[in-house]
Amino acid sequence: MVKFVVLYGQPEDPAAFDKHYVDTHIPLVEKIPNLRRFEAGKVLGTPDGSAPPFYYHAELSFDDAAALESSLGSPEGQAAGADVETFATGGATVLITEA
Amino acid sequence: MVKFVVLYGQPEDPAAFDKHYVDTHIPLVEKIPNLRRFEAGKVLGTPDGSAPPFYYHAELSFDDAAALESSLGSPEGQAAGADVETFATGGATVLITEA
Repeated sequence: MVKFVVLYGQPEDPAAFDKHYVDTHIPLVEKIPNLRRFEAGKVLGTPDGSAPPFYYHAELSFDDAAALESSLGSPEGQAAGADVETFATGGATVLITEA
Repeated sequence: MVKFVVLYGQPEDPAAFDKHYVDTHIPLVEKIPNLRRFEAGKVLGTPDGSAPPFYYHAELSFDDAAALESSLGSPEGQAAGADVETFATGGATVLITEA
């Protein structure tokens, strides 16, 4: 399995981020073809109580790297990617991982 | 579901990290009670080709925050946590997320 892991930085307006994520972004991600699993959630904290460096953690799982590439390159994948620019006011760090 | 997400920084000796992770750390993690799912994998890269800020991504999933706390506080959880100090030469950033 290959994952597309997105680490969102602290947004300027957390409530607006949360609303956009649930109302708009999740429906766009769920349209991506050949997406095997999608999980996303807010960062609650860190074990030592320090300020977490990220606000949200999301991951999209695919069968392999070729599937990830073609899925994210599809019109649905491009639409979800373009949407990120509209709400990720704290930036987004993306890691492609082999799991 | 609540996840314990570990983002490992670039280790001093990647081959030693990989060997320790597979031979020693995974068996310790798999002994943690009430662990619902464990997935870990190497960071292959980033979509824009920039250097990834992390080397490895791991996540331990639990039913809820109370289960996470008691599981990681168990002797098996403490042993796995103590082991991290022995091989995470590039540091480890931990996020607790709600998924």
